[in-house]
Amino acid sequence: MSTTTAYDELQRRHQRLHHLSHLQAIASWDQSAKMPAKGNEARSLALAEMGGLLHQLATAPDLKGLLDAAEGESLSEAQRANLREMRRAWRASNALPQSLVEAKSLAASRCEHAWRTQRPANDWVGHVENLREVVRLAREEARLLAEDTGLARYDALMDQYEPGMRAAEVDRLFGDLRQWLPDLVREVQERQRRETVIVPEGPFPAAAQRALGQDAMRLLGFDFEAGRLDESAHPFCGGVPEDVRMTTRYSVDNFLPSLTGTIHETGHGRYEQKLPREWLGQPLARARSMALHESQSLSFEMQLGAHPAFAGLLAPLVVKHLGAQPAFTAENLNRLMTRVVPGHIRVDADEVSYPAHVILRYEIERALIEGQIEVEDIPALWDAKMMELLGIDTRGNFQDGPMQDVHWGAGLFGYFPCYTLGAMYAAQWFAAMRRALPDLDARIAAGELAPVFDWLDRHIWSQGSRWETPELVRRASGETLNPTYFKAHLQARYLG
Amino acid sequence: MSTTTAYDELQRRHQRLHHLSHLQAIASWDQSAKMPAKGNEARSLALAEMGGLLHQLATAPDLKGLLDAAEGESLSEAQRANLREMRRAWRASNALPQSLVEAKSLAASRCEHAWRTQRPANDWVGHVENLREVVRLAREEARLLAEDTGLARYDALMDQYEPGMRAAEVDRLFGDLRQWLPDLVREVQERQRRETVIVPEGPFPAAAQRALGQDAMRLLGFDFEAGRLDESAHPFCGGVPEDVRMTTRYSVDNFLPSLTGTIHETGHGRYEQKLPREWLGQPLARARSMALHESQSLSFEMQLGAHPAFAGLLAPLVVKHLGAQPAFTAENLNRLMTRVVPGHIRVDADEVSYPAHVILRYEIERALIEGQIEVEDIPALWDAKMMELLGIDTRGNFQDGPMQDVHWGAGLFGYFPCYTLGAMYAAQWFAAMRRALPDLDARIAAGELAPVFDWLDRHIWSQGSRWETPELVRRASGETLNPTYFKAHLQARYLG
Repeated sequence: MSTTTAYDELQRRHQRLHHLSHLQAIASWDQSAKMPAKGNEARSLALAEMGGLLHQLATAPDLKGLLDAAEGESLSEAQRANLREMRRAWRASNALPQSLVEAKSLAASRCEHAWRTQRPANDWVGHVENLREVVRLAREEARLLAEDTGLARYDALMDQYEPGMRAAEVDRLFGDLRQWLPDLVREVQERQRRETVIVPEGPFPAAAQRALGQDAMRLLGFDFEAGRLDESAHPFCGGVPEDVRMTTRYSVDNFLPSLTGTIHETGHGRYEQKLPREWLGQPLARARSMALHESQSLSFEMQLGAHPAFAGLLAPLVVKHLGAQPAFTAENLNRLMTRVVPGHIRVDADEVSYPAHVILRYEIERALIEGQIEVEDIPALWDAKMMELLGIDTRGNFQDGPMQDVHWGAGLFGYFPCYTLGAMYAAQWFAAMRRALPDLDARIAAGELAPVFDWLDRHIWSQGSRWETPELVRRASGETLNPTYFKAHLQARYLG
Repeated sequence: MSTTTAYDELQRRHQRLHHLSHLQAIASWDQSAKMPAKGNEARSLALAEMGGLLHQLATAPDLKGLLDAAEGESLSEAQRANLREMRRAWRASNALPQSLVEAKSLAASRCEHAWRTQRPANDWVGHVENLREVVRLAREEARLLAEDTGLARYDALMDQYEPGMRAAEVDRLFGDLRQWLPDLVREVQERQRRETVIVPEGPFPAAAQRALGQDAMRLLGFDFEAGRLDESAHPFCGGVPEDVRMTTRYSVDNFLPSLTGTIHETGHGRYEQKLPREWLGQPLARARSMALHESQSLSFEMQLGAHPAFAGLLAPLVVKHLGAQPAFTAENLNRLMTRVVPGHIRVDADEVSYPAHVILRYEIERALIEGQIEVEDIPALWDAKMMELLGIDTRGNFQDGPMQDVHWGAGLFGYFPCYTLGAMYAAQWFAAMRRALPDLDARIAAGELAPVFDWLDRHIWSQGSRWETPELVRRASGETLNPTYFKAHLQARYLG
């Protein structure tokens, strides 16, 4: 006689959510990468309907009883971890009423869609109209999540992306960064002034860049039978673990932003493609957190992609697709990829000035959520902080200022810190890798990337959400998040 | 004080179905046009889950009461027509248990996906393994639908695509066709033997063909802000009315199959794009039937596309994208597009021999559903009928025989007759148009296609499902389906 346990039933529910979320993920990718303009209203309504439905399923009244009953059942360690993640997901969903979930989805779709034309037109006033509603709903969300969890409002939002992380710790980590980063940027710039860098000569046709990006993805182990590379206004890695949809954008004048962006997204993509297959559909099989996710994209883009030895692997691919040029030596490519030039655009930023962009966004979005500022205050604050952190004047340039990213328009408040936390984790991973594999750099130079992927797979990808973040980090690297590895990495690479 | 009527509630339910079906439509398009191979298992499960969910919503227990209550409410004529279509949809959904709907979706996804590699490998044995299960489920479906409607089993399946059409009438129409078609094919071939036709010289790069197809779509009024053209193994027109997704496939040796196929799908696409906007989401706004749908694609491909005057509009586009060639005069292009050469492939067939392909499929699929034959019997029957109708030996060539189409693998039994019914309707539309606009052919020659589109929009597209088919046809053309127009059209065009 077989009996269905509460745990079995919960597994079945999550499998169902996984199937329906699959359609939502593909339709969202399509919305950004393929959909023509007039399709947006219907798509937004469809995604909002599905968002509401998923929320309804995730908050079914009998789930609490099932979760409680499953606690008392005989479960393996992995099943118990899965149950823990089920409860986390249930709690997050229950904190929000369905009407808010639907309103958020709709407001975000509208804002994001309008942003696609407003950004090139530098139309901040038009964008503010939509953004105000997104922020209003995000504040309401923060209030409800805070009520439910007992956390502060911004912490409650951040906890959705980075469970366990608190603004107090971010303040401590970013506060330290803020001390030494502007000086480091200046010092590196000073030193790099003595270097000769040959600027590649364009134009670089999009088709050639696409083929180059795909070859770089192959070099990095991306499985094209389980994913694609397409184009969108804002690069992202979406889709589902079984079918990863990466995007990039091409500028015919400069191939590097797309190439490094593609390498970045490939880190996200491989994490998704290598999540534990036997658990797919269950919360245990999800990526641990967004900072962990960014630690993978930055392991690829920065630790590996900007590694001097990696440039030796990339150079022949660049020559193959873009033709031979004096600029395409390994040494010059690496100089281009490690050039520290503070600029307006976060996603195009170099490794050293990048954290400044994140600190700025963190400080603004936290104030926005806590109600200390309004949407209208963003440009002045943006400008002041860009000037303070990177010495850049951004007045009047909204398209390369607060309109450069789509995160806020999409309602993703509390996400930005994950980028720099990810950079810190990535440095910690490579320090641990080098302890385990003292010849790592020589092997990278020899084109052997398998040791890197194997380490990441064993310690991060295959683990999914099996452990809480501090435990995952400790098991991988012997200690919890330690920002000194990031500082040491930057100093070694840029001043060493 | 506002009260929600039963009719309002039904409208709301259909709006919801429309939103969720949107995601299913886009994910299905993606499955055929974009998805990498390893994504298929997860996609099939996701689509099956959604199929089951849509079925559950379409069969909610309270719908019967709502439909009955709405009958007694005060409704406009259009609302009453919408209610009639709501009841039709409800009845069709209720005839099938959810388990069958899910099993069908899954079996079809699996069969179709395997077919993509089995077809090029001519692997009939492998295909039969999957097809057998699809047929088993289709027979079960036919049995349940027949029980519910009191129709014969094949009629019950056909009624889903072409409401009101019965095998007895198809027998009558196709029986007549069977009498004169083989002779007409021979007669036209005899006559065309005297014509000189210049064969275009390839290769024709896919990118150039794509641009040509897109220009032809623009000429035909397709709105690219509300739709796309992509590639897939089997061309189709999918997506949603707000965002139409057409596909084609390119052969570098011959550009005509893709060009005429694209013109064909554009007819489907414009019908969808011009369905009554104010009713979108309601059953009233759906295309009337599949034969009506094919009457639009064939109005575009055959009545218009193969019109001698239309070749004059097409020729400059062909030259623009493929370069000048002696073969690219309007006269020669029209000869190429009206060349009657019986062949293996239905979708590449000329206008005259095309109905033979449909008669063959109709006779086989009807016998299959009625249990007179099994899947294993298809090749021998296929060969016998191809020989009888078109004088073609197909033995051993499964990939250009029963494996050329994906309809059966996708479980679409009862659909094939719609193609030739559509050809008959299309001839009837153009006869009616010429009565209303005696200078129609001169206007087409002058590049004025608006009169054609306006007529179709006014009589077909904008009407959606407002009228039952015979009434729609009578309002448009003054009489119900009359096959003499099709015969007269073929005789005038090919022997005139």
